[in-house]
Amino acid sequence: MAAAEGVSLPTPTEEMNGAGTLMDFLDEPFPDVGTYEDFHTIDWLREKSRDTDRHRKITSKSKESIWELIKSLLDAWSGWVVMLLIGLLSGTLAGVIDLAVDWMTDLKEGVCLSAFWYSHEQCCWTSNQTTFADRDKCPQWQKWAELMTGHAEGAGAYLLNYFLYILWALLFSFLAVSLVRVFAPYACGSGIPEIKTILSGFIIRGYLGKWTLLIKTVTLVLAVSSGLSLGKEGPLVHVACCCGNLFCSLFSKYSKNEGKRREVLSAAAAAGVSVAFGAPIGGVLFSLEEVSYYFPLKTLWRSFFAALVAAFTLRSINPFGNSRLVLFYVEYHTPWYMAELVPFILLGVFGGLWGTLFIRANIAWCRRRKTTQLGKYPVLEVIIVTGITALLAYPNPYTRRSTSELISELFNDCGALESSQLCDYYNNPNMSRPVDDIPDRPAGPGVYNAMWQLTLALIFKIVITIFTFGMKIPSGLFIPSMAVGAIAGRIVGIAVEQMAYHHHDWIIFKNWCRPGADCVTPGLYAMVGAAACLGGVTRMTVSLVVIMFELTGGLEYIVPLMAAAVTSKWVADAFGKEGIYESHIQLNGYPYLDVRDEFTHRTLATDVMRPRRNDPPLAVLTQDSTTVEDVETLIKDTDYNGFPVVVSRESERLIGFVQRRDLTLAIKNARQKQDGVVSSSVVYFTEDAPQLPASNPQPLKLRRILNLSPFTVTDHTPMETVVDIFRKLGLRQCLVTRSGRLLGIITKKDVLRHMAQMMNQDPESIMFN
Amino acid sequence: MAAAEGVSLPTPTEEMNGAGTLMDFLDEPFPDVGTYEDFHTIDWLREKSRDTDRHRKITSKSKESIWELIKSLLDAWSGWVVMLLIGLLSGTLAGVIDLAVDWMTDLKEGVCLSAFWYSHEQCCWTSNQTTFADRDKCPQWQKWAELMTGHAEGAGAYLLNYFLYILWALLFSFLAVSLVRVFAPYACGSGIPEIKTILSGFIIRGYLGKWTLLIKTVTLVLAVSSGLSLGKEGPLVHVACCCGNLFCSLFSKYSKNEGKRREVLSAAAAAGVSVAFGAPIGGVLFSLEEVSYYFPLKTLWRSFFAALVAAFTLRSINPFGNSRLVLFYVEYHTPWYMAELVPFILLGVFGGLWGTLFIRANIAWCRRRKTTQLGKYPVLEVIIVTGITALLAYPNPYTRRSTSELISELFNDCGALESSQLCDYYNNPNMSRPVDDIPDRPAGPGVYNAMWQLTLALIFKIVITIFTFGMKIPSGLFIPSMAVGAIAGRIVGIAVEQMAYHHHDWIIFKNWCRPGADCVTPGLYAMVGAAACLGGVTRMTVSLVVIMFELTGGLEYIVPLMAAAVTSKWVADAFGKEGIYESHIQLNGYPYLDVRDEFTHRTLATDVMRPRRNDPPLAVLTQDSTTVEDVETLIKDTDYNGFPVVVSRESERLIGFVQRRDLTLAIKNARQKQDGVVSSSVVYFTEDAPQLPASNPQPLKLRRILNLSPFTVTDHTPMETVVDIFRKLGLRQCLVTRSGRLLGIITKKDVLRHMAQMMNQDPESIMFN
Repeated sequence: MAAAEGVSLPTPTEEMNGAGTLMDFLDEPFPDVGTYEDFHTIDWLREKSRDTDRHRKITSKSKESIWELIKSLLDAWSGWVVMLLIGLLSGTLAGVIDLAVDWMTDLKEGVCLSAFWYSHEQCCWTSNQTTFADRDKCPQWQKWAELMTGHAEGAGAYLLNYFLYILWALLFSFLAVSLVRVFAPYACGSGIPEIKTILSGFIIRGYLGKWTLLIKTVTLVLAVSSGLSLGKEGPLVHVACCCGNLFCSLFSKYSKNEGKRREVLSAAAAAGVSVAFGAPIGGVLFSLEEVSYYFPLKTLWRSFFAALVAAFTLRSINPFGNSRLVLFYVEYHTPWYMAELVPFILLGVFGGLWGTLFIRANIAWCRRRKTTQLGKYPVLEVIIVTGITALLAYPNPYTRRSTSELISELFNDCGALESSQLCDYYNNPNMSRPVDDIPDRPAGPGVYNAMWQLTLALIFKIVITIFTFGMKIPSGLFIPSMAVGAIAGRIVGIAVEQMAYHHHDWIIFKNWCRPGADCVTPGLYAMVGAAACLGGVTRMTVSLVVIMFELTGGLEYIVPLMAAAVTSKWVADAFGKEGIYESHIQLNGYPYLDVRDEFTHRTLATDVMRPRRNDPPLAVLTQDSTTVEDVETLIKDTDYNGFPVVVSRESERLIGFVQRRDLTLAIKNARQKQDGVVSSSVVYFTEDAPQLPASNPQPLKLRRILNLSPFTVTDHTPMETVVDIFRKLGLRQCLVTRSGRLLGIITKKDVLRHMAQMMNQDPESIMFN
Repeated sequence: MAAAEGVSLPTPTEEMNGAGTLMDFLDEPFPDVGTYEDFHTIDWLREKSRDTDRHRKITSKSKESIWELIKSLLDAWSGWVVMLLIGLLSGTLAGVIDLAVDWMTDLKEGVCLSAFWYSHEQCCWTSNQTTFADRDKCPQWQKWAELMTGHAEGAGAYLLNYFLYILWALLFSFLAVSLVRVFAPYACGSGIPEIKTILSGFIIRGYLGKWTLLIKTVTLVLAVSSGLSLGKEGPLVHVACCCGNLFCSLFSKYSKNEGKRREVLSAAAAAGVSVAFGAPIGGVLFSLEEVSYYFPLKTLWRSFFAALVAAFTLRSINPFGNSRLVLFYVEYHTPWYMAELVPFILLGVFGGLWGTLFIRANIAWCRRRKTTQLGKYPVLEVIIVTGITALLAYPNPYTRRSTSELISELFNDCGALESSQLCDYYNNPNMSRPVDDIPDRPAGPGVYNAMWQLTLALIFKIVITIFTFGMKIPSGLFIPSMAVGAIAGRIVGIAVEQMAYHHHDWIIFKNWCRPGADCVTPGLYAMVGAAACLGGVTRMTVSLVVIMFELTGGLEYIVPLMAAAVTSKWVADAFGKEGIYESHIQLNGYPYLDVRDEFTHRTLATDVMRPRRNDPPLAVLTQDSTTVEDVETLIKDTDYNGFPVVVSRESERLIGFVQRRDLTLAIKNARQKQDGVVSSSVVYFTEDAPQLPASNPQPLKLRRILNLSPFTVTDHTPMETVVDIFRKLGLRQCLVTRSGRLLGIITKKDVLRHMAQMMNQDPESIMFN
């Protein structure tokens, strides 16, 4: 082998052998070299190094002319432009979705006579009734029964309304599932498991396409409006990522580099959460903690920018009509007390148990859907579940309204003007306090009634959500989880409040809850419960607390939220380490290498590498003795993604690694364009092919597609180190050597299979990459 | 070579060769194996794998008995316990420092007669004067001149106060520098550059020791009280990290593992910023963005916990007497307008220019201090700078007071009750508005006077800070930078305000600033200026904005802050990529591999590896033909940190890598304890030593200290990939091979030197590791 001197990147060999017809490869020798097939894993190192090459080229060119300089500046700024566009579009879409959902949810119950495109609230804005209860009955807004029969009250009107409610719900959900089925099957679900997988380096073509964007936006509105137990938060992340992918295609910097594209997608995910909750910092942390895989500091900064732009775009659309950025704006007036940590921690335990129950039951149901006849009738399934949901939801006022309204009401403190059932307390007429500051009072019949209804709503939500999440419509999990937690929290809060009222002398209340003091805030309990349940299902931690912190806007309540979130995570982790997203990733068998799984087993690279002991030897190419025919046979007979190239079969000393796809393309290209390349041509991976007699067939020089720096580890490397390397460097495969001899290969799939084996899981469920 | 079968970690070879006297090594064969010397770099992979081993041992033991189970649970919880302790101690220390600084700063001017340990504010709390100006003159508080001579006014009293102010300042700073010199030289400076270096894996023994903690806490109080242009925020991070290090020593999990220890230190840094600004989320992001190197998600969560505990501990101490968590609590009542973005961006430009100026001038001065006589008289230097500072600061009311008070006043809006010079506006007597909502008004003479004084203060602060930062006392940079920005911002803010008042009809004001409207908030300009200057100096981005967001508590003002921070960073980056901390790291020659530097040059591993072309060949050991004497000679003749072990010098096939330190210890140990090991004994790195005739000297088997999985790359690997690998895996060195043959070695030092060369920097300044 010739010794490399100094810098010796493979430069086009200047026709070293005499044969004049030899065409050499240019910079991008033939189309598609270096791209990936669908359902394959990208090579992060290669992507990064390609981007550096590109950057180097632009920088060196920029010195040539003003035009090139401008082009290089535009290139440097394109990242920010993409972020701006993502922020604007995802903010706009979120606003439109919010408005449409509001309108269509109310359409199930009635219509605005003054302008049919107004939601109930918008319709009654101009009405001059003061309390909420009265305002709800503004004359412009008519329920369907009233409009059709003229009677607003009575059993007939109720039944007609009931029937129309179900009919609308069925119509919306049928439309949603049909659109998904026909136009964009990838638009179903929350999308977060798939986005996590994509961000970790997997290719799923079309998952973030324009079609998916369009259909997901439309069907999300339909699905949420149909009253099913699902939310729009997860799908909004998917929508924002689709926007990100869309804008990537404007700049070759991002569209041609799968690594760079994923940086944009990470930022888009942050923008998605930012508009879902109006929490830009929480969104960035969500992207960092929950979905992203490779998150350099540059991405942090850009994500923050995208999240802010999205949040401000949404605010300027002002879908909630209150100039507030956040979905559930709350303001509490009372501090919390140390003793309240006990119910907060209990809510945490409840959240953890709910998380465990939900994940197990939902995964079991989804597995059944995948493996039985059930999965063959997705439209029917959606129709049935919607029917049952609407049928059971209508009679209970807490389930009839949209889930986010419910959460909003549960979070809120009972002001004096509040007319809701939940605020039906006996007021002490002798009190001359300001109206906003309401001390402890006994609960009225409305509250007791509400408690019953809430308990029924809790059971209903718990059961129906298990069957809803995973159907073939867009469905987020944040809102139903929060609803379960908020209901439980409010119930506990009211219980504690009434206990405190009736037993001011109990030792636990004595110190902080004197008669007349405003000591328990049931709304805060609802919020803590919501955080606990969301934490139990998703296992979010910091981002969860920060999102909740952005909702309340005060550090005051961080400790209760944190206590609940921590407890819930610990309780849920005790039953199983995986959150709902990881469980769905596993169920679908995506090749996802979780950064959080710690691999602590004492195995070595040699135990994992292939070939195993009784397997046929490793398929390798030699650097100068394989013919085109041999290569073609190898490609036909095996399905490996690439082949190591060695000096000779005897010495087994490693030279490089060649991708199957590149090899196929190169040979096809050479056979078409290069004269003299026949089946018996020898393939050379060396720097220069030897002088051959004219009678020999033309050699095929393929050093250009050879990766000269394949990643190697020794056979004694502990698997924990190998796992670490795969994770941190984002490898597709790694070669195993011993004292310089090639022994075998470890692919990402092997690593995942090994990890699954070590954790006694089903190793066969990992999708082939 | 024997083939390794299945799992083949080097287990104690069961006396394979007949020699009965052969002592084999136990699990931890001799003390100190696997530890590091001072000023050396740790091996992150090795630390991680040692922790996994430890964890595995504890887990397997925990099944043996209840006691072991409890021990394993304690071990699992120890991380949280450490975080709790860090939060408590650093919160307490921050509170104590705040109280002491308040008192001692005021001591320079006078004393409280009712209780000498009260600061001016505490002394006058009970006083019943209503406005601030009157309250300042409460009878319990007496200036020194009044106390000594009985005259509060007049030239004599002024001069006496002036003189005593300088005297106190000199006393405090002399005490500070003497304590640092005598007891803890590491307590000087801000500590952040060193902490960054330590977190990246460097060992500086004693830098985070108990002594440093104690002395830094005490001298920080003295230094800040002396009125020098420095802040306590950076040193508080150092103090928190010392706390972290202190509590690490309680648990062997952290004290014995340099990698795990650094996870704790990252969290401690977050707690430090959290108490410095009362911004827990900002603290976590600061740790993530600015100081940490390896920041797994587990650390994120724990940092957040530590930061919150610290913040709440500080709040319960309540040093600012206002129940507020944050240092500068502000509440603005007016929104900002799009047109104001122009001055905000100008402030950003100013911040960037200030950052560049400061970094260049300060580094030049520090270099001069290092290389000339100046560095030999640190005490004198401190005394002189303090003298000049006090002399110039006293006459100007804006520099006489403590810098944080100044910033606080500049940030604040002018309420109706505000008596400060800055709020001396002509009020319209006909206005019957609520007192808090003050519309636009003409500035009075006090404001114009304040403008002049602020301009002088600005120039003074800019110049003196350059000479102050880097002296041998604890000195933070956040507060002086923010002061510069706040002064500039306030000046710009008042200018815009007055311009708007006098020219309501100008096109730029017409749309948003009608007469009588409250349209410009000068305090907001001060805050934006502070953010810009801090950003220019430190190049913080997200954490800066989040810290500022936590100060104001509203998303409202994030856009101005972000615009200024982004502009400032871009302007400063245009003049030089490095922030002040990176510049100091470079000045001190620490081996710090910045995650943010992008390496884009087209060099290969072969260009960087050693030996270079004309060097002597690489120092290697062979697996079975080197004698003890050979090894000892090699250790004596070279200063490499480790040696590759090869099959034979001819084949150069790599077996493993052995650390110099381990080798020295092993031979020393064997010579002492193992009979028959003499200079001519052969050292075996193979799995089993061959049967030797009895006449031959006893062989020395050292496979146990051999790293069988050294990291290798091929000579064709691009350097950008190598740099990436070094960064992400935290390597100390990497071996270079070609087709399985060992060619050379690349150490972290080589990487740093190469990067410096490529950037045309002084390559000799990198400290040897």
